[in-house]
Amino acid sequence: MSKILIVLLDGLGDRPSRSLNGMTPLQRANKPGLDELAAEGVTGIMDPVAPGVPVGSDTGHLSILGYDPYKFYTGRGPLEALGAGMDLRPGDVAFRVNFATVGDDWTVIDRRAGRISTEEARALGEAIREMAAAFDSEFAFDFLTTVEHRGVLVMRGDGVSDEVTDVDPHMEGVKAEMPRPRSPGAERTARELERFLRKAREVLESHPLNRERVRKGLRPANAILPRGAGKMPRLPSLRERYGVSCVVIAGGALYRGVCKAAGMDVRIVPTATGTLNTDLNAKFNAALESLKTYDLVFLHIKGTDTASHDRNPSAKAAFIERIDKELRARIDQLGDVIVCVTGDHTTSSVDGRHHGDPVPLLIWGEGVRRDEVVRFDEVSCARGGLGRIRGLDLMNTLMDLTGRVEMFGE
Amino acid sequence: MSKILIVLLDGLGDRPSRSLNGMTPLQRANKPGLDELAAEGVTGIMDPVAPGVPVGSDTGHLSILGYDPYKFYTGRGPLEALGAGMDLRPGDVAFRVNFATVGDDWTVIDRRAGRISTEEARALGEAIREMAAAFDSEFAFDFLTTVEHRGVLVMRGDGVSDEVTDVDPHMEGVKAEMPRPRSPGAERTARELERFLRKAREVLESHPLNRERVRKGLRPANAILPRGAGKMPRLPSLRERYGVSCVVIAGGALYRGVCKAAGMDVRIVPTATGTLNTDLNAKFNAALESLKTYDLVFLHIKGTDTASHDRNPSAKAAFIERIDKELRARIDQLGDVIVCVTGDHTTSSVDGRHHGDPVPLLIWGEGVRRDEVVRFDEVSCARGGLGRIRGLDLMNTLMDLTGRVEMFGE
Repeated sequence: MSKILIVLLDGLGDRPSRSLNGMTPLQRANKPGLDELAAEGVTGIMDPVAPGVPVGSDTGHLSILGYDPYKFYTGRGPLEALGAGMDLRPGDVAFRVNFATVGDDWTVIDRRAGRISTEEARALGEAIREMAAAFDSEFAFDFLTTVEHRGVLVMRGDGVSDEVTDVDPHMEGVKAEMPRPRSPGAERTARELERFLRKAREVLESHPLNRERVRKGLRPANAILPRGAGKMPRLPSLRERYGVSCVVIAGGALYRGVCKAAGMDVRIVPTATGTLNTDLNAKFNAALESLKTYDLVFLHIKGTDTASHDRNPSAKAAFIERIDKELRARIDQLGDVIVCVTGDHTTSSVDGRHHGDPVPLLIWGEGVRRDEVVRFDEVSCARGGLGRIRGLDLMNTLMDLTGRVEMFGE
Repeated sequence: MSKILIVLLDGLGDRPSRSLNGMTPLQRANKPGLDELAAEGVTGIMDPVAPGVPVGSDTGHLSILGYDPYKFYTGRGPLEALGAGMDLRPGDVAFRVNFATVGDDWTVIDRRAGRISTEEARALGEAIREMAAAFDSEFAFDFLTTVEHRGVLVMRGDGVSDEVTDVDPHMEGVKAEMPRPRSPGAERTARELERFLRKAREVLESHPLNRERVRKGLRPANAILPRGAGKMPRLPSLRERYGVSCVVIAGGALYRGVCKAAGMDVRIVPTATGTLNTDLNAKFNAALESLKTYDLVFLHIKGTDTASHDRNPSAKAAFIERIDKELRARIDQLGDVIVCVTGDHTTSSVDGRHHGDPVPLLIWGEGVRRDEVVRFDEVSCARGGLGRIRGLDLMNTLMDLTGRVEMFGE
């Protein structure tokens, strides 16, 4: 059975740019490899969720992996926590957390705690983890820092609820209010979370690292402020659905998280940064190597989205050319593989925002209908043999091409 | 109001074949008639159910006739029984049945009873029908043989259930287990079915034809083994939905059955075989004649699917050319008719299996938007004016073109 390589270019879709003479970055880029795959394969356009609905990377990825986000999405928190390396189970509640500087009455002075470094935050996080391990509660708590002032808090236990209010007020100069239940079943969660946050504050206030920061005139990271409670969803894995083994190669925690939730293994490429300076060569090498042992390899590349958010169409085009070079150099080594190249949503490099325009899609490999489209871009692909599909249809399409979808009926 | 002719080519969609230089049979076939209709009409591609979902002929036909198979499909059994000529009503439970050779303890020796002929099976079936008519039970039983060792058993009555296990073990050398209830309401059905099967065995063991077979050293058809219990669904008829009179012309029992379930009449063409050697001329003549008295004629042609299952792309292309010739010769005689040509699913003539690729679709006639597509095939039609639609949308599209769909709203 053919293997499957999905090359997911984050925020790939775009809109025309004056600085590119009315072209999109993908139209402008010189990309002979992608055009070759388009010419030999079948193309189309895809709405990650539905026409005109701008989606986030989380909902976009869920949909493209075959999970209706209207059914399965419970917030970015649990997916990012999973991707950051926490051992989340269905039903666990995850919060995104900021280290912050707060006053005696919990008035928020600095939502980023004086832009504390990743290393310092990690040391403080260690202290909170230790406290959490010994914390006497009907719920279990776990905590992990990620980048700079950011972290993840997880609660686990019978009856834990995600129906609690944000503690982080999302602005400075106002008080961080202790969590309140948003529904009758959430009282215990709110009460125990409040106890935990107050205990964490004690630990942080007395931590040597914070005393040192105060001595230096820096703002101490003397509180953690959770927000965005979300329950870890139970996704039927791609193995359960199609019998495939899968691996994700991605720099960013969120993408690893969504894929882990779908039952994928995670392959770490140490030089993959999740930004424009990522090590594309190493990522493509890892992808090719992974195809030897896995049925499906999901290669996620973030830089296209980064350049869009930076409102830099030229940088996006240049980055696409770098991707094209790496992909093109490996086409002949692919063997019996169905390749799919697409994006998770459109991010305009003009206004830097996510939009609901469809993304281009190409599928290449043995048995694929060859259409007349010879260029891979937002407009050319609209005339392709796949027409316009939805993100939710992609996985069935790829699995059916490789003979893995059970027939409905006789 | 225009009449409607649907020419349904079973398993029409295909994948590129090396032996046809990377073309599909439809791309390869010389089919000036179909291309003319495509050039003058509107085209598109259609997912019988959804992109990437391979469907059977039963579910595919249900969907194309406007019945969501996720809601209405209860198995192939009742549809095939209806098509074979049994008088099924909504709620009746139908089983597919094999004549088999079993040992004293019901161990299955031969699932096809020594490849018993259609004529012999019919004689044995007559004996079972007689027994059934006199059988003392709270349920009514009916039985009909179809081709060779195949038959259909129907149970009718208050509280009859399709929640009973298969008796046919689907393999030889193991015991056929008497039916068991799969849910609490099915005990009576299982019990009465077992009584019926044991009684049928008595009838068969003592039947002169079987004694004769044993004397000749042939395996006796000494048992009937039911499987695939399914309840006859209640489909709102096309007449109820659109006020149309309809007729089906099809060689195969299943297609007649689905159409009967939709309230269509059945027109028998004695020389229609449901295979590659069918009498296309007679079928097209019958279709044209039926258009005089019916609003909608559903002409089903099976050979395209047969050639695909035989993994014979050239035979499929040649058969398409024969269809094209018959159709082309009649275009000028059609009059005020909307013609729709499409398939019920993709069957790959490379691997012989059903797949979830979309099928090509053309609609021709007065009032139809004319697009720029001039060839009828899987790839050309993807650029057509209909885009990519779903099977469930087809009937509304055709009925609306002929002014038969009520406006929603004011």
